[in-house]
Amino acid sequence: MNFKEELKNYQKYMDDKLNDFFLDENSYDKRLKEAMRYSLLAGGKRIRPILMLATCKLFTEDYEVCLPFAIGMEMVHNAILIHDDMPCIDDDDFRHGKPTNHKMYDECTALLAGDALFNYANIVITDDLREELDIKKISMKIMALNEFVKAQDNMLSGEYYDTVSEGEILTLEQLEYMHRNKTGALIKEAVRIGALLGGASNQELQVLTNFAENIGLAFQIKDDILSEIGDSKKTGKPVGNDREKNKATFVTKYGIERAQEILDDVINEAMTSIRIFGDKSEFLLNLALYIKDRES
Amino acid sequence: MNFKEELKNYQKYMDDKLNDFFLDENSYDKRLKEAMRYSLLAGGKRIRPILMLATCKLFTEDYEVCLPFAIGMEMVHNAILIHDDMPCIDDDDFRHGKPTNHKMYDECTALLAGDALFNYANIVITDDLREELDIKKISMKIMALNEFVKAQDNMLSGEYYDTVSEGEILTLEQLEYMHRNKTGALIKEAVRIGALLGGASNQELQVLTNFAENIGLAFQIKDDILSEIGDSKKTGKPVGNDREKNKATFVTKYGIERAQEILDDVINEAMTSIRIFGDKSEFLLNLALYIKDRES
Repeated sequence: MNFKEELKNYQKYMDDKLNDFFLDENSYDKRLKEAMRYSLLAGGKRIRPILMLATCKLFTEDYEVCLPFAIGMEMVHNAILIHDDMPCIDDDDFRHGKPTNHKMYDECTALLAGDALFNYANIVITDDLREELDIKKISMKIMALNEFVKAQDNMLSGEYYDTVSEGEILTLEQLEYMHRNKTGALIKEAVRIGALLGGASNQELQVLTNFAENIGLAFQIKDDILSEIGDSKKTGKPVGNDREKNKATFVTKYGIERAQEILDDVINEAMTSIRIFGDKSEFLLNLALYIKDRES
Repeated sequence: MNFKEELKNYQKYMDDKLNDFFLDENSYDKRLKEAMRYSLLAGGKRIRPILMLATCKLFTEDYEVCLPFAIGMEMVHNAILIHDDMPCIDDDDFRHGKPTNHKMYDECTALLAGDALFNYANIVITDDLREELDIKKISMKIMALNEFVKAQDNMLSGEYYDTVSEGEILTLEQLEYMHRNKTGALIKEAVRIGALLGGASNQELQVLTNFAENIGLAFQIKDDILSEIGDSKKTGKPVGNDREKNKATFVTKYGIERAQEILDDVINEAMTSIRIFGDKSEFLLNLALYIKDRES
């Protein structure tokens, strides 16, 4: 199976799992559940859960052990996007080429749909945790959940810093803080949870954490580049958005060419670090290249 | 010790515990943490955590076993209040006689402070869970966390229904759905977690769940009454707010007198149900009366 097929399989697998949620017909909150489904199924690339599952697969064929976290991760990712798009933060009208949640519904619905999606991740994870009988796995899953909610705290801190620093010229340290937290925290945690639940050794966990930090940084730099020179038909977002909003990004700070060079370096470092896993790392290596070369 | 002293002791105990949070000086999200502290320490009555601790104390002197949940419950309670006050939902300027979070800070900060408070509850609870060594307690705490996040889902559903039904005339069934979820879900869960972690039997848990459902309903009816005829200096909210906004409440539906009668009935039923605990239930009985007679 080539990389693109494998990626599609993972995406379909996640889409199918996510498609099972929020279908219950409770007349009282039907529209809220609809709004949650709308964003959850609006066409994300499922990068975070795929990173988690593929990392877990380095260690075990039973990679479904981390499925509740993979689902929860995608819910949290979409929750923050809904809030991030709202008028009081980024005020964006489109995401993935579709109206943002508050445009499709309204601000009140978007606010509460985001809240409920954030929280629902914990329902999925603790429903599974309640059923777990293996004491070692219980302990690993508790650790994973603890790390996951801490990663969310870091994500919100980065998100906050992004909004308050709009229009300011940031130092490299400040820019890195923002990216490491806003985008990087969940990406890093996706890989760590896959490794933890797969049964990685401490040393392997360390290597993969380093890989994930670079992937997270690369992901954000690529986002910055696409925001400046991407094809808005493919990205689903208007081009030049960040510049117009005076956002501090790798591109507004260093220019396109230097940003592209940094991206190449960071991806190379990520790829080099996981060569210790040999052939098994092929999918993750290709995923790194995909993150670098993606058009949306 | 009389009831008022005991209540004050509980309140001070909780205030002291909550006061320890969000003091760290990370320059990047200092203002976000300040906003979280602002609402968390703005002068709530701590009814939910006190219900939890006092219920737990029916069964064990070691009621600190549920402290992480008591802290988490108060964080979640304040998180939803921050979001509920925002312009796209209730658009309130004052709470506890102080400017609401988005008035004190701004909407973006309030949105993310709410998100971060919701999430921080899970950090406090899973930090404790990671340290727990007693396998039976681990299992109980996982169950409690699972119930807690489900109660939050119900709370958000009730909150949503409250906002979309503004201006509509609700049936009793609809009004009860709204209250049972919006206010009732967390209050019920506070009592259930106290009972679960205290080691209640199934029958005791059932009795206390019934008690809590009545307390939750009473709490909301009293809120409705105070909104109509309370002293705004004491409630910290403008009088007649609900009527002006065409909100469906027990008062707008039944009038003050009938709402007061229903309140009395519900409190009586709550008090009768826990007499099986004898002298130990004295504080909870007084707390029921306090909820009925409170002026704020």
